[in-house]
Amino acid sequence: MRYRARMIPVGSVMVGGQVARVIESKNPQWKVGSYLMCYTGWRSHTHIPAEELKKVGFMYSPLPDLSGMSKTLGLGVIGMPGNTAYFGFLELCNPKEGETVLVNAAAGAVGSAVVQIAKIKGCKVIASAGSEDKCAWVKELGADHVFNYKTANIDEELKKAAPGGIHCYFDNVGGDFTLHALRHMVDHARISVCGAISTYNNESKDQGKLVANSPYDTSLIITKQLRIEGFLVNRWLNRWLEGLTQLKQWVQEGKMKYKETVTQGFENMPQAFIGLFRGENIGKAVVVV
Amino acid sequence: MRYRARMIPVGSVMVGGQVARVIESKNPQWKVGSYLMCYTGWRSHTHIPAEELKKVGFMYSPLPDLSGMSKTLGLGVIGMPGNTAYFGFLELCNPKEGETVLVNAAAGAVGSAVVQIAKIKGCKVIASAGSEDKCAWVKELGADHVFNYKTANIDEELKKAAPGGIHCYFDNVGGDFTLHALRHMVDHARISVCGAISTYNNESKDQGKLVANSPYDTSLIITKQLRIEGFLVNRWLNRWLEGLTQLKQWVQEGKMKYKETVTQGFENMPQAFIGLFRGENIGKAVVVV
Repeated sequence: MRYRARMIPVGSVMVGGQVARVIESKNPQWKVGSYLMCYTGWRSHTHIPAEELKKVGFMYSPLPDLSGMSKTLGLGVIGMPGNTAYFGFLELCNPKEGETVLVNAAAGAVGSAVVQIAKIKGCKVIASAGSEDKCAWVKELGADHVFNYKTANIDEELKKAAPGGIHCYFDNVGGDFTLHALRHMVDHARISVCGAISTYNNESKDQGKLVANSPYDTSLIITKQLRIEGFLVNRWLNRWLEGLTQLKQWVQEGKMKYKETVTQGFENMPQAFIGLFRGENIGKAVVVV
Repeated sequence: MRYRARMIPVGSVMVGGQVARVIESKNPQWKVGSYLMCYTGWRSHTHIPAEELKKVGFMYSPLPDLSGMSKTLGLGVIGMPGNTAYFGFLELCNPKEGETVLVNAAAGAVGSAVVQIAKIKGCKVIASAGSEDKCAWVKELGADHVFNYKTANIDEELKKAAPGGIHCYFDNVGGDFTLHALRHMVDHARISVCGAISTYNNESKDQGKLVANSPYDTSLIITKQLRIEGFLVNRWLNRWLEGLTQLKQWVQEGKMKYKETVTQGFENMPQAFIGLFRGENIGKAVVVV
């Protein structure tokens, strides 16, 4: 959202996803009282023209059957963040049983799902988060080694937790964390680049000259023969339901836990958003209107 | 070599590959008068103990049958640089007919092979080199658009040559060139990171703080969903002869041209090496002793 927000003019509707209830409909496919997932931005009410609704897919989709669980899960573990973890981790990191996986921002909606998927796949998981509370929860999720990146020495923690090196790295953060993490990867390690929250507020120019915001040191890419791939989750739109179905099953079996940080009231959306950059949230940030 | 040179103490034998003739042998597998490829460093004469010779593979291998062509080709187009192009480009960029390929340092031993392999595979090739002479030769090799990166505006050249974007990028250079190139990649582009000659002399610390020498901007990796992979060519040691056989066939068919910059005399090796960083060579730099 931070990245997208830079590209839209001030005064535009802020981007974002919501679970919405149909309160009026001239389309028999969308009945009054039914729910949909939509990326209509920060709005309390949306009028969607018939033409628009043909874009069923990422923009508009029926809320999947959550078997009575909270509808907010459609915004989190059984929604886009869950699928981000499911596809972004499994497809790009291609983790194998017994391998060591590193996940940062591990108390977030995506990171916490990656931790648990990695454990389900039989990996050893090293995870980091930005407070003691967050770390305690990530430990509960089954991570083998958890540290607070704000107070710990990242190098020391990784050396201790992964003496044999890291095979898979799911990177939500970038910046300094990744700069250190790369030094602990094994040869042929796979890195899935999901986000770079540490750098979203940086500029890509320095005194008018183009600069890269990048911790992916070229010499390490070459000598360790690293594979680094970025992704946007809509790449897997054609397998969307596959991901949600698996995630829902894991939630129902108790293998996939989740938390939500819930803010009440439409008028508090900016505060909830800014909280992301202050590290105030555990799990998915949800605003209930 | 530059990278490796930093890791060995001053006074060590400098690393490097050579085609050597056997002048004395107690091993019936290596007959007097036969030739081998070996990575024994900068030496006029080498005594190889029997134990060492068991490491046949990358360190020591019989010179392939070059059907009467110059034995120096075993150091270039039908040797390690040829295989670097063959495997590093085909396996990691996975180019498809009709796609647009970008190659830098295209007048070098590796780059010139990549240009020609890309043309053989039916791609459109954009190439850069560092002098008008080099550019003229790369054009002769069949590249569709060639520019001198020292005098041209990289952004303008790429915009003009690849209005639809670049699908595959074989990067020998890194640094500023790559910083600009990334902005012209299509979504899901593949980048093979072979070298970063522009940064080999940089330090990885700035005022004692770890820094990344990297043009691979994280935001672009994510939003363009780039796949970036570094490699060392010995990854394909088990397919070594496959590469050489194909390269030799292309050379014999006239589909693969090459140049060599030949320096005479062992005592001139340091000058020949430094020439790499001054952009003085076309094709493979060979020292004849």
